Amino acid sequence: MPEDSPHMVTCTAPVNIAVVKYWGKRNEELILPINSSLSVTLHQDQLKTTTTVASSRSFQEDRIWLNGKEEDINHPRLQSCLREIRRLARKRRSDGKSGVDGVGLSHKVHICSVNNFPTAAGLASSAAGFACLVYTLARVFGIEGELSVIARQGSGSACRSMYGGFVQWIMGCSDDGKDSLAQQVEPESHWPELRVLVLVASAERKPVGSTSGMQTSVKTSHLLKHRAESVVPQRMEEMIKAVRRKDFATFAELTMKDSNQFHATCLDTYPPIFYLNAVSRQVIGLVHQYNRHHGEIRVAYTFDAGPNAVIYILQEHVAEFVQVVRHFFPPETNGGQFLRGLPVDPAVLSEELKQAIGLEPMSKGIGYIISTKVGPGPCVLEDRSQHLLGPEGLPKKNE
Amino acid sequence: MPEDSPHMVTCTAPVNIAVVKYWGKRNEELILPINSSLSVTLHQDQLKTTTTVASSRSFQEDRIWLNGKEEDINHPRLQSCLREIRRLARKRRSDGKSGVDGVGLSHKVHICSVNNFPTAAGLASSAAGFACLVYTLARVFGIEGELSVIARQGSGSACRSMYGGFVQWIMGCSDDGKDSLAQQVEPESHWPELRVLVLVASAERKPVGSTSGMQTSVKTSHLLKHRAESVVPQRMEEMIKAVRRKDFATFAELTMKDSNQFHATCLDTYPPIFYLNAVSRQVIGLVHQYNRHHGEIRVAYTFDAGPNAVIYILQEHVAEFVQVVRHFFPPETNGGQFLRGLPVDPAVLSEELKQAIGLEPMSKGIGYIISTKVGPGPCVLEDRSQHLLGPEGLPKKNE
Repeated sequence: MPEDSPHMVTCTAPVNIAVVKYWGKRNEELILPINSSLSVTLHQDQLKTTTTVASSRSFQEDRIWLNGKEEDINHPRLQSCLREIRRLARKRRSDGKSGVDGVGLSHKVHICSVNNFPTAAGLASSAAGFACLVYTLARVFGIEGELSVIARQGSGSACRSMYGGFVQWIMGCSDDGKDSLAQQVEPESHWPELRVLVLVASAERKPVGSTSGMQTSVKTSHLLKHRAESVVPQRMEEMIKAVRRKDFATFAELTMKDSNQFHATCLDTYPPIFYLNAVSRQVIGLVHQYNRHHGEIRVAYTFDAGPNAVIYILQEHVAEFVQVVRHFFPPETNGGQFLRGLPVDPAVLSEELKQAIGLEPMSKGIGYIISTKVGPGPCVLEDRSQHLLGPEGLPKKNE
Repeated sequence: MPEDSPHMVTCTAPVNIAVVKYWGKRNEELILPINSSLSVTLHQDQLKTTTTVASSRSFQEDRIWLNGKEEDINHPRLQSCLREIRRLARKRRSDGKSGVDGVGLSHKVHICSVNNFPTAAGLASSAAGFACLVYTLARVFGIEGELSVIARQGSGSACRSMYGGFVQWIMGCSDDGKDSLAQQVEPESHWPELRVLVLVASAERKPVGSTSGMQTSVKTSHLLKHRAESVVPQRMEEMIKAVRRKDFATFAELTMKDSNQFHATCLDTYPPIFYLNAVSRQVIGLVHQYNRHHGEIRVAYTFDAGPNAVIYILQEHVAEFVQVVRHFFPPETNGGQFLRGLPVDPAVLSEELKQAIGLEPMSKGIGYIISTKVGPGPCVLEDRSQHLLGPEGLPKKNE
């Protein structure tokens, strides 16, 4: 490698969807949560962030490009991650461990990151983004070991995107946040029958950002405090047990209850925060009626701080349920592909089932469905052609 | 009075709107609540139930007509009220107190009840209805004293309609429910500047009835239990203090928080219950933006188990706020009168105010506004021409 050519690493990281929700910080700067949480890592074939980090002594300053646009590198949370990574790198050097050849601690970095899904889809891209950033920076600076505490300081839920499969974020109790980290509960291979459907709601602006939303909730909601202290600890245990046993009915019921309770605490916030809308209510009604019709819990919904629904379901029921969604949210005829991602067999609905659900079809509610499954954690792309930065350390032109 | 002519009494009773909500029973049969609650009695000029009870030895059986239609007298809650009234009447006789001349304990009753507002308005008519029934029956049977414990057994919130002004329902602690009763906190004359606007949402079916809804909530919501045990006791004290001091800002903030918390516990119910819809969310957004614009809390909303909003506001701000509602919920041009009840002066909105609120007007959301104020408790109509039953004890023909 010529001395002036930048050292470059490209990695990818997944999106995760919580089934026990994170809402509320006990420390804003370190991003320490008021309760533990648990999530499912989605497969990167459908949803991922790709990040290239280049390091060179010739770079004048740290720079970052997100989805094709240069952004301010001085964002405090970006700075937290860069600072923590460099601190660890210095520590390794002073401990006598070697770094990566050619990467000086004083070298500046250029960062380029893209998502393979539209930001407008309202999927929490900051988790995948910060996980990918921290994972890639760590490779550049030759750092190994526990990285989720650093990703956490970029975006709380990013710590859970550092692992594949089923992941818990243990809230920890120390003031410095060293014990507030993610752990894999089960790997992505554990429950191969589990499928995930992201019902992407037709574009709508997120009314209240999650950072300021959770601040207001912590300040004003009595119910959030009670949830964090008295409901979540037991729910985490039950959820982990359900995941380990692959007990879908329990997993699904806890997932729905926890989503509802999170949104209940948003409503108990003053002034109240609404993330659920008429489309979400239709999805919730549809899932409960569908499960009731079948006399068992076959489908679970969960909603984050936006209007999309994420559905957990076993493989054997996917075809029918997708058809149910198609029936009760008739796609626009002139729209693009309604079903994206993993293929789903066609299915025909019985009149009995349609009547049992008994809702009015709502057109234009759901833009499309992303069909996916549980997936692995971040990984390195060895193929140099995939670098997002060119040999000068600047974003490659779109080809 | 000829011996065979029925003894007849006609009374009226008011609707009440809780500002600390009742949701959840600890005893279904006696209707004992899991928390105390507090309400404002609305004026009967706008909203009332009128009930005539006739009693005669010639009646073969107890009968009841509601809003022009004969209903089943064997409804358990009707039977509870009739049984309790007759038990008290017997007790008075055996205590040597006289009843009303000519009314035998064995006499059957005919009951006829009408509301002066459409049932479709979705206003909790059962509170006014049972309050009126119990109040009228008590007059017929010559019973005095504490009657709210009996009204409570017809419909929980009916006990609060037994008084005018500001009324608390003290939850009580005894198993027989004798200490679970209503008390007037302040009379209707206490706060003459306080006005009430009922924003009647365009007709929509109530998705889950309150009786079964609260049963499910008590069974499944952790947050409801916490609310009842740990939030409401202090909130009741604060609310009573705010009412006594006529401290509108505190009264209004507590009212909104309590409404939101009640709906939060509905959402925390499994399966979740939704009473708030897109219209409610628009009202909530509008009120918070309006208050923010003025830099003080001038308006409060509260929602019960239905889509109507009830607004508390001081007289001086009514004209402007009604115009705000008219602007953001444009009335149908071909509809009836948009504003009913107490007259409201016209007002012109500044562009600045409209822009500060910043919502898209939503047409067809609100059918009409009932403008009213705090009012008195049940009363007797002395004018015999107002009896709803004719001399035969049957409903008078509509005239």
